Amino acid sequence: MTETDPLGQTIQPGNKQPLYIIKTGGNVIDDESGLHFFLRDFASIDEKKILVHGGGKIATAIGGKLGIEPNYIDGRRITDDATIDLVTMVYAGLVNKKIVAALQSLQCNAIGLTGADANSLPAKKRPVKLIDYGWVGDIDPTDINMGIWRLFLDNKLVPVVGPLTHDGLGHILNMNADTIAAVLSRSLSRFYNVKLVYCFEKSGVLQDINDEQSSLAHLDAKTYHELKENKKLFAGILPKIDNAFDAVNNGVQEVVIGNSNSLLQLTKGEGGTKIIL
Amino acid sequence: MTETDPLGQTIQPGNKQPLYIIKTGGNVIDDESGLHFFLRDFASIDEKKILVHGGGKIATAIGGKLGIEPNYIDGRRITDDATIDLVTMVYAGLVNKKIVAALQSLQCNAIGLTGADANSLPAKKRPVKLIDYGWVGDIDPTDINMGIWRLFLDNKLVPVVGPLTHDGLGHILNMNADTIAAVLSRSLSRFYNVKLVYCFEKSGVLQDINDEQSSLAHLDAKTYHELKENKKLFAGILPKIDNAFDAVNNGVQEVVIGNSNSLLQLTKGEGGTKIIL
Repeated sequence: MTETDPLGQTIQPGNKQPLYIIKTGGNVIDDESGLHFFLRDFASIDEKKILVHGGGKIATAIGGKLGIEPNYIDGRRITDDATIDLVTMVYAGLVNKKIVAALQSLQCNAIGLTGADANSLPAKKRPVKLIDYGWVGDIDPTDINMGIWRLFLDNKLVPVVGPLTHDGLGHILNMNADTIAAVLSRSLSRFYNVKLVYCFEKSGVLQDINDEQSSLAHLDAKTYHELKENKKLFAGILPKIDNAFDAVNNGVQEVVIGNSNSLLQLTKGEGGTKIIL
Repeated sequence: MTETDPLGQTIQPGNKQPLYIIKTGGNVIDDESGLHFFLRDFASIDEKKILVHGGGKIATAIGGKLGIEPNYIDGRRITDDATIDLVTMVYAGLVNKKIVAALQSLQCNAIGLTGADANSLPAKKRPVKLIDYGWVGDIDPTDINMGIWRLFLDNKLVPVVGPLTHDGLGHILNMNADTIAAVLSRSLSRFYNVKLVYCFEKSGVLQDINDEQSSLAHLDAKTYHELKENKKLFAGILPKIDNAFDAVNNGVQEVVIGNSNSLLQLTKGEGGTKIIL
């Protein structure tokens, strides 16, 4: 497929440059020395790259001290007024800027962003149906402002994206970082050969949650549904796998799920679980 | 003077575009409705523009809840480890992103930045002499990364700058927002006709602190030194005036100090105190 470049050029599939979109989450962010090694690996990736980060447990810890208790309805976490302020402080402030400063010290020209910044990820507040999730956003990939991402990437900036965006009406919205990574990967696949890497604390998608050796080398949709039906998979990983399939079904060249400690191997196609059509 | 553009063009003084650099501080940020009107005025400025914001009292309030007490040595506030984390959360997270989201709702394409982001304001930790100020930065205007500011401004982005930067070694540093505004104005004067507006809660530089009508229309260096020697000026405004003179002595076209509620008048040269050579 030939894509028309909004700047007037035409990008042929063979002319697309590689782009790594790396998602890391709580376990890495909460562990200072683990984060250091992870960022060192990330900084050493030569190609264009984006880091999407989650929040970690520090928001809960700081919220506890501020008297902001997690608010659940029917087991789903709700982002109320106090919580959106809390995560804006912790994710967009403390966590994001610590990562940016650390990457800068590694000669990686990081720029911290939320989806509100430069309107890079326009979203809508999730409509209230059975549950009012509060200040939680949903992004339509077709709404993403491609020009701004290309401006950053094509000027050698390295976006570091926190799990927040906005509704265009002045409100910050909470987002799942896995979803941001998938949606960004889908959209940017129009212009780059995107490789999406989900990093977490396991070696990949495990057939047996208690056995790190049981990581699948590949996972296709048919096997995924079988494993899910037989309740072989840890429930917590299902949204991540759903996001991974969403990406691979929508033009992302490669999606892999694997251990944060093995980032460079994962980017080379070694280890982890490859999500395939 | 003719400046050579790093992108290869040459900028003649007559060809420089106007750029407004607006600094706002605590009193506006702490007042939700005042902030709304201020941002509405800021958004309506048609020319290129940058907003530099301070922190407000909210950091002290949140710090109090977290058990982080302000730390003073010889009357000077010290930025210790707990305090730099606190201000990173509050200034770069909560305050910065609320402003960005609000400006986005006003069709102003704001992008939140600290000096760590894109290495836009490289700084050094203040050397320890008589006092160790902790994680506080000093910026040499000649170190400022002009390319990145021009990239943003020339692509219709509106930088919203929090009072933080970094040392290039992985540490976030606290900065005085007035100083950031002055230093940025000096540096960007090479490429733009910069008008620097310091907004605060007074109508200008007052000859009598208790009389809002005593605002000076103009202030030159000679009058400033006389007023200072005769202790006519409120001590808190002296660093702001020093920053203003630093700007006007280093190529900034116009510097005015005035009331936040009158931003649009101030940008038109009406009201406030003009700092003149």
